[in-house]
Amino acid sequence: MMDFKALGQEVMERLETLGKISQSSEHLDRRYLTEQHKEANQLVGGWMETAGMQTWQDQAGNLWGRFAAEEADAPRFIMGSHLDTVPNGGKYDGMLGVVAPITLIEAFQAKGIRLPFHLDIVGFGDEEGTRFGSTLLGSRALTGQWPASWADLKDDDGMSLAEALENFGLSFDKVSEAAIPTDNLKGYLELHIEQGPVLEEKNLPVGVVSAIAGAKRFEFTVTGMAGHAGTVPMPMRLDALAASSEMILAIEAVAKEHGVVATVGQINNRPNGVNVISGKTVFSLDIRSEHDQQRDDALTDLMERLATIAAKRNVILEHQQTHSASAVHCDGELQSVLRDAIAAQNIEVHTLFSGAGHDAMAIAEICPVAMLFMRCDKGISHHPAEAIMTDDVVTTLAVLSHTLQSLK
Amino acid sequence: MMDFKALGQEVMERLETLGKISQSSEHLDRRYLTEQHKEANQLVGGWMETAGMQTWQDQAGNLWGRFAAEEADAPRFIMGSHLDTVPNGGKYDGMLGVVAPITLIEAFQAKGIRLPFHLDIVGFGDEEGTRFGSTLLGSRALTGQWPASWADLKDDDGMSLAEALENFGLSFDKVSEAAIPTDNLKGYLELHIEQGPVLEEKNLPVGVVSAIAGAKRFEFTVTGMAGHAGTVPMPMRLDALAASSEMILAIEAVAKEHGVVATVGQINNRPNGVNVISGKTVFSLDIRSEHDQQRDDALTDLMERLATIAAKRNVILEHQQTHSASAVHCDGELQSVLRDAIAAQNIEVHTLFSGAGHDAMAIAEICPVAMLFMRCDKGISHHPAEAIMTDDVVTTLAVLSHTLQSLK
Repeated sequence: MMDFKALGQEVMERLETLGKISQSSEHLDRRYLTEQHKEANQLVGGWMETAGMQTWQDQAGNLWGRFAAEEADAPRFIMGSHLDTVPNGGKYDGMLGVVAPITLIEAFQAKGIRLPFHLDIVGFGDEEGTRFGSTLLGSRALTGQWPASWADLKDDDGMSLAEALENFGLSFDKVSEAAIPTDNLKGYLELHIEQGPVLEEKNLPVGVVSAIAGAKRFEFTVTGMAGHAGTVPMPMRLDALAASSEMILAIEAVAKEHGVVATVGQINNRPNGVNVISGKTVFSLDIRSEHDQQRDDALTDLMERLATIAAKRNVILEHQQTHSASAVHCDGELQSVLRDAIAAQNIEVHTLFSGAGHDAMAIAEICPVAMLFMRCDKGISHHPAEAIMTDDVVTTLAVLSHTLQSLK
Repeated sequence: MMDFKALGQEVMERLETLGKISQSSEHLDRRYLTEQHKEANQLVGGWMETAGMQTWQDQAGNLWGRFAAEEADAPRFIMGSHLDTVPNGGKYDGMLGVVAPITLIEAFQAKGIRLPFHLDIVGFGDEEGTRFGSTLLGSRALTGQWPASWADLKDDDGMSLAEALENFGLSFDKVSEAAIPTDNLKGYLELHIEQGPVLEEKNLPVGVVSAIAGAKRFEFTVTGMAGHAGTVPMPMRLDALAASSEMILAIEAVAKEHGVVATVGQINNRPNGVNVISGKTVFSLDIRSEHDQQRDDALTDLMERLATIAAKRNVILEHQQTHSASAVHCDGELQSVLRDAIAAQNIEVHTLFSGAGHDAMAIAEICPVAMLFMRCDKGISHHPAEAIMTDDVVTTLAVLSHTLQSLK
């Protein structure tokens, strides 16, 4: 038997160490192609070597380690996640999915366990998209989907992605070499903290992800008429904020009725004076579902209700779509292996969808993908308060060990 | 008969001229104790002299002109309004109530009409409060109610009210001399544009003001829990913006049920990200009625409903009161004289309350007050689009002429 308890401790300690590599002295902030990215690759690459893996860095700055099968032409299976963070982020989002499998492989190595496939662990250089405003740069390089226009993406200091790659010792023109051959690729499995409260609510350490939700985003503009808060009688008002409030409640109701998540996270009101009736309100909508059709049905219903509210209140409603992504479904076979591995630990198998985006979304372009979610404290993420429990890591390692040894 | 048509033209031309005196080259902006205030006093003082009035400036910078009665110890009746504007304001708010009576007096003088009281016209230096953040500085000086602490009120450039008075040739220590004796004071009548859409809606040129509404203002803070727009299921959300939206609609409903006006004009949402559930929303409430009791009953009802919404949604609701003023009732006898004067022009007499504050609110401390509202285009005010019709000025002059000659 492997000592998952000791391994869990080791994972926690490594995450603590990795979480100290930051470009900010005040909080954790590690962005793509920075000195800290290089440092993180070095540290994690060292752990890979300790685990007996061959390591390399690809042309997009992603870190790789291989736990090789005996047969040189064995198929390839990938596990991984990202090593970058948001500014003022947490220590577990992304990193857990790189450090845990490496630590597990070290134990496989020690116990003489071999797998019938090359197990490659990848630490993506960019998932959050914080530096260049475009997400999943690392995993999208593996799929060969970097448009030429990205060379000119700029960071906050005006440095282009092409320049940043040069500084890192890479070249935009060679990023295409990071694309991986798909002919012998079995699949991709990503371990990630849930970043939501569902597993905690169900008191479960892990859950199997069924799909990664596709989001659509819109910006709505409601135009009424500004006026004096004292002089315009209630029935004569064209109050943009009151109209928007009714729309926000309609969006919430539609989401509940259709079983999707819909969020108005941003609102900007004009002129926004204490004694002035609102003349114009702009608000955002982010709507997601594991099923694109369900999301789009909800959207149709929602648009009708908002138009009715606008007509009733005699305000002008305009909208524009700002984002659209399709849902990505996790591979049924891989899900089933994960479920068996969870059940083998005598843990109730819970399947949930991911409302957040992950590297697995990009990798789904080239092979079957699966995700294992681990409980995190109160569902908090992208924040220094992000926290996990060592016991859950121990359980997760046991599930992963079972999973990897069950994969044919 | 007086030629009210010609007088109306004269009023419009004078307002046009006065509306050109601005501290901004782009829009109308005339604030208290500026060079432009001085210029306006000079221009309007010249018109007073043309009308045969004695003129003076008081210790608060207010401009005065007297159309003297034959008897030196005759009682005193005041008409007036303010000569300052908001930044990017209109040409009629305030100024109409100064220029129209002066122009009427010029005609009285020409026709040999005398009144049994001294008719004093006052052009207040500050009503809007734009420069020093406190309103009604001019009219409150007449009531002797300038607290000593006002000496330190600062404008945007850090100049204190005391310094600004010195620069203008006045002295903070002498402002108390602007207070007027009340023993022989008959009353105060203010002509003002409505700044609301009621008269236009009723197709009436003028209306009698019954009361100036007392406003209360509050700031509400709703605290929920921020979260990821994709990962927190709808039933587990503590969405501060959704809760606030429900509260804003409740406020609107209460206002309609209780016959008061209530406005949420300002909203600020945190973190206000497209993909983040709102964690905290702060919004304002401005609630007004011509009857304080009616307003306070509405407030009681409203507070209960908001607390119920907060409890239902499990968010924290806090509030603080930021402003409170009692309603000021216009004098019944003066209102009745105004009504008779309107009826004498064969115009339907309409009585309405003022939701906006006016100099008359301050003057009510020392004598009976009344207000005559004149229709303005679409109720727009505090904006360059502020507009009135010459025909309405003509009618208004006839009403004022009748009113002044009816006052005993």
